[in-house]
Amino acid sequence: MKKNLLVAQSGGPSAAINATLCGVVEMGLANDEIDKIYGVRNGIMGLLSERLVELNELLAEADARQLLCQTPSSVLGSCRMKLSPWEENSYEYEKVIAVLRKYNIGYFVFIGGGDSMDTVGKLAQYCRDHHYDINIVGAPKTIDNDLEGTDHAPGFGSAAKYIGTTFSEIACDCNVYALPSITIVEIMGHDAGWLTAAAALARINEDDAPDLIYLCEKPFSIDQFLFDIREKMMEKRSVIVAVSEGLRDENGVRIVDILQEKAEEDLGYKVASGIAQGLEEIVRQEIGCKVRGIELNLMQRCASHAASLVDIEEAKRLGFEAAAYAVKGVTGEMVCLRRVANEPYETEIFLVPVEEILGRSKKVPVEWINEEGNDITKEMMDYLLPLIQGELPCTYHHGVPVHFHLPKEK
Amino acid sequence: MKKNLLVAQSGGPSAAINATLCGVVEMGLANDEIDKIYGVRNGIMGLLSERLVELNELLAEADARQLLCQTPSSVLGSCRMKLSPWEENSYEYEKVIAVLRKYNIGYFVFIGGGDSMDTVGKLAQYCRDHHYDINIVGAPKTIDNDLEGTDHAPGFGSAAKYIGTTFSEIACDCNVYALPSITIVEIMGHDAGWLTAAAALARINEDDAPDLIYLCEKPFSIDQFLFDIREKMMEKRSVIVAVSEGLRDENGVRIVDILQEKAEEDLGYKVASGIAQGLEEIVRQEIGCKVRGIELNLMQRCASHAASLVDIEEAKRLGFEAAAYAVKGVTGEMVCLRRVANEPYETEIFLVPVEEILGRSKKVPVEWINEEGNDITKEMMDYLLPLIQGELPCTYHHGVPVHFHLPKEK
Repeated sequence: MKKNLLVAQSGGPSAAINATLCGVVEMGLANDEIDKIYGVRNGIMGLLSERLVELNELLAEADARQLLCQTPSSVLGSCRMKLSPWEENSYEYEKVIAVLRKYNIGYFVFIGGGDSMDTVGKLAQYCRDHHYDINIVGAPKTIDNDLEGTDHAPGFGSAAKYIGTTFSEIACDCNVYALPSITIVEIMGHDAGWLTAAAALARINEDDAPDLIYLCEKPFSIDQFLFDIREKMMEKRSVIVAVSEGLRDENGVRIVDILQEKAEEDLGYKVASGIAQGLEEIVRQEIGCKVRGIELNLMQRCASHAASLVDIEEAKRLGFEAAAYAVKGVTGEMVCLRRVANEPYETEIFLVPVEEILGRSKKVPVEWINEEGNDITKEMMDYLLPLIQGELPCTYHHGVPVHFHLPKEK
Repeated sequence: MKKNLLVAQSGGPSAAINATLCGVVEMGLANDEIDKIYGVRNGIMGLLSERLVELNELLAEADARQLLCQTPSSVLGSCRMKLSPWEENSYEYEKVIAVLRKYNIGYFVFIGGGDSMDTVGKLAQYCRDHHYDINIVGAPKTIDNDLEGTDHAPGFGSAAKYIGTTFSEIACDCNVYALPSITIVEIMGHDAGWLTAAAALARINEDDAPDLIYLCEKPFSIDQFLFDIREKMMEKRSVIVAVSEGLRDENGVRIVDILQEKAEEDLGYKVASGIAQGLEEIVRQEIGCKVRGIELNLMQRCASHAASLVDIEEAKRLGFEAAAYAVKGVTGEMVCLRRVANEPYETEIFLVPVEEILGRSKKVPVEWINEEGNDITKEMMDYLLPLIQGELPCTYHHGVPVHFHLPKEK
């Protein structure tokens, strides 16, 4: 008897998570063992409240699926909910299983980051323990690239391409005046510096930035930072710096917290700000030239109009394979990418039990950061470059990109 | 006898000012009356210090000119210097004329905004008064679109397209969670709300933002703003707001200044911030749900990878015509765009004496803002739409856009 396929999205938005959804749907449409393809709104939360939407017709046309792939964020919606261990709250598990059985779900692909893989593991274990024949496979997603198991995660390549592109453009902008200036750009990443490292991609076509790069994998010192900037200013007029939002000092204290305290002591008032703005204030006081803090904010994770073709294609392939593995009987595992070669770039897909990646965060290897802690090495560039290759063709209408939207809920 | 053509860029960066430079160069290469084409670095400052660069060979190939058109900011560099009236400082004028004569300059195109047109007017007058046969023509540039005389200025269309695109992507991002959230996006424009109005372009393909738009042409009230947001939150979960950086209250006091004072009174400390961050703080206190302030910062003026084709083509045409008019004997005037029709969109180029536009700033007509002061009207959409049509093809290398760079100065 045919079974139905369910797909959910969870965690923070990215430019590639809908391409993974597209891959899941394409597998479902192509596979004879699958009848209906359901999406669930807002992840596990929507499953508990039975908010399912049938996708077969909505995504039957290739045109609709192409628009889906150029739509940022999660069209199914997301949530930040984690399931409790089932011994503590079996009601949630029973409710989820009741919905899955009601809709005759045999295969369930959950697209997300670490928390989502936790859900995959718990649900798969629960199904095994209670002899429910439902296979649950995870598909990775995180712009931060801190997921263990996989060489890199979909969403990261497009964010990296946006960051490299934006630094190349900011370099042109900041070099325009004859006066000295310092520009500090804050990039997402609380615990891993992968995205901040991507700023270096702007140099590949000889744009003159960034001059300094600080990742959260090495302790950050404000004094050293000021010293580094002063050194650079002896060579050139416009100095552009990339900083991870998660920078910490040698004791593990967050630099934003230190900056806020320092500002309060020095100035008598607190500065409520991100790290770029905090460092901007310090540089203004200590160096005194023109200084500007920039936060790449949501744009770095949702700029689908400038997505990496490699990233989107990998995202789609992972979704397709995750669904295919579920049909083949795999459960409680996540599909991963293994890098086979860099030139020409080649990857293969393999499986990792989710238990092996839970609670771990993949950091940038310290060997990929220079000794001074203010730049990256060639190894990091070699790692990054293949992930940003190619430009996803983007369909515009009336001059603005077109996005795929689900029908509103009744 | 053949004469040489000189071109300068000035004022703030944009995605289109290099296309205007390209137009000037193409006219110079095509015209038999012109021998050499010189660019001057850093505007009038570079002219005073004789920092000229010959462009004929550097831009001889169509490929190089194409890269120039996709390079943001001013490749010749810029400056913020205004010439004093010549009666006060004749030395500057004599120096400028000496350099122009040394290089046998007969035609001078100055690309920039209001301050640059001031220079065009003063220099042209000085040349007329002293019988120097040098024709000086201005070509408009401003992302703010506040230049009088012209229907719109190059650079604005590309910035508007970036803002519309970015709002459409932010809308996808912010709608992802089931929880209520407010996102406040700050857009450039101290005295004119044209760019902020462009946020509305995100709606053209049914992306769900912005919900509220506040331009600096109407007095802004924080109480009304909070009321508007509360009203919107009764209809929908995610509320996205566009605000001009230059918002003022009914007495003309800048809202950022009011916010800083209010924060100091309420909290005992000052908040050093832009308007988005200041309003974010107020909304957090008064409404209390998830709130995020975003500043589009330099990205809105330098995102050449997403430039408007109409904008870049118009920019190029204006540069070409400015140079052609100078050769024909025009001086002290600026080339302008007149909109002949909206559907199909058609413009023509005409001249305006720079004296007629100096000291004036083109505002958004109040009829183009709705009565409540929190949105724009259809007339504004009709004005904006033609300016963002088409996507400038962008050449990437190694996954990052390629930019044109002048050789470094010796």
